[in-house]
Amino acid sequence: MEILIAKGAGFCFGVKRAIDIAFAMADKKQEGIYTFGPVIHNPQVVEKLREKGIAPTDDICKDDIKVLIIRTHGIPLDLMEGASKSGYEIVDATCPFVTKAQHYAKLLNDDGYQVIILGDRDHPEVRGLMSYAGDDALVIDGKEELPELKSRVGIVVQTTQPVDGLKRLMGKVIERSREIKVYNTICNSTALRLKETEEMAGEVDVMVVVGGKNSANTTQLANLCAARPVRTHHIETAEELRPEWFDGAGKVGITAGASTPDWIIDEVKERIKDIGGEQGDGT
Amino acid sequence: MEILIAKGAGFCFGVKRAIDIAFAMADKKQEGIYTFGPVIHNPQVVEKLREKGIAPTDDICKDDIKVLIIRTHGIPLDLMEGASKSGYEIVDATCPFVTKAQHYAKLLNDDGYQVIILGDRDHPEVRGLMSYAGDDALVIDGKEELPELKSRVGIVVQTTQPVDGLKRLMGKVIERSREIKVYNTICNSTALRLKETEEMAGEVDVMVVVGGKNSANTTQLANLCAARPVRTHHIETAEELRPEWFDGAGKVGITAGASTPDWIIDEVKERIKDIGGEQGDGT
Repeated sequence: MEILIAKGAGFCFGVKRAIDIAFAMADKKQEGIYTFGPVIHNPQVVEKLREKGIAPTDDICKDDIKVLIIRTHGIPLDLMEGASKSGYEIVDATCPFVTKAQHYAKLLNDDGYQVIILGDRDHPEVRGLMSYAGDDALVIDGKEELPELKSRVGIVVQTTQPVDGLKRLMGKVIERSREIKVYNTICNSTALRLKETEEMAGEVDVMVVVGGKNSANTTQLANLCAARPVRTHHIETAEELRPEWFDGAGKVGITAGASTPDWIIDEVKERIKDIGGEQGDGT
Repeated sequence: MEILIAKGAGFCFGVKRAIDIAFAMADKKQEGIYTFGPVIHNPQVVEKLREKGIAPTDDICKDDIKVLIIRTHGIPLDLMEGASKSGYEIVDATCPFVTKAQHYAKLLNDDGYQVIILGDRDHPEVRGLMSYAGDDALVIDGKEELPELKSRVGIVVQTTQPVDGLKRLMGKVIERSREIKVYNTICNSTALRLKETEEMAGEVDVMVVVGGKNSANTTQLANLCAARPVRTHHIETAEELRPEWFDGAGKVGITAGASTPDWIIDEVKERIKDIGGEQGDGT
């Protein structure tokens, strides 16, 4: 059984930076360090941090907070302002690309554009972006019909969205509005990972997508593969792998979301190798 | 034989305004009135003006100019400035929607965007727009590959382009640039005329498209019909109609460009009626 790993699989720049910040804080062994929500969307990494004494919280007013680490997805403006007034230290691990998208959402709103955010309305990054985008802002996931729009529309995009959705949205908006200003805030590494994964899915018999079930970009990779279609399995850890998934498979592809650590990808690879060996194909 | 006429066929607002301006000037019976180029892209109208003593010229320095009427498609900035310095009277019959597009091209350039003009590079409107769009501006007709672009791109559109081409261009640009600002300068009446013509082409056996062979928007209507596909004939006047075009036709559609006068459309309709009668279908 041949096993391929997508080059762009695993930690992106923003996640790596957030993890480095969080673990560096953990090394200080200070009391009262929290992350606002899970610092990244990977339960195993969050668990490792918890073991080192850093837990996630959703309560910025929690009594014993000494340091609050802002998650990589960013947080809404009012929470950031509330936390700033609380007197404890704030360590901002927001991905710089998300910070940039927040900045652009504010800029568009300040310039009088009606802001559309293309993304998943329940995702923390999008909830954060919304808080910068003004009262008439809309979240569009790309599937629904557009409501009536103002004549000047500005668009920012959740950093992990595929570019095709942005193109479709722009096409719909320009039929309804006279002026449109778009900041393409899709992160390059996301675009690259989607492209590599799609190509790989076309070459293999089984795709294994590794990453948090709560990770939007990992779920997106899994959906992309399943739609190809190719036999696709989305797992968080190697323990979830089942030998029967690989029956008759000559080639297996592994990809992983931006929040999936290398050590989990390696474990998955080794376990699939073992399954191949057990099935006697000599890999 | 049933004959349908597209509702949006014939003079648009900008053309009607330019014609009214030009014929009002003709009524003054003053010497030395010229239009810069043909005031609209309809040879029959231009001929009628010539009979009234108003001829087109491409030479802004012509000795005997007393009044220069600027064509509905607008003219390049340097020519406008040159004409302004010549001491004769300038009457601006530029379509207000074209003037707006010129303004937006300048605005985008002033704001530091690389300007792309979607349109036909040889069309006078586009040559005019280019003069406002800065040194790094590009004309794109939608068919060619895009060259490398700057990170901030602004788009304006020749007023008679179809919106689908704009959507395709936006999709290509957003893959290459981080910021894109689009002024949808496509004129509403153009969009409506294209839509009505396309629907009509789907219902009839023969389409007759009436208007100047040098009219971009008329040629576009003809191409749209031919691609549908439906038997399509682009004519300037009723004299060009051939009875054999209508052999076996139950339904005939007539559409016309923005620069086609009603009297020509009426003549075409009457001539097709006659052909139907000659063919003995009792229309």
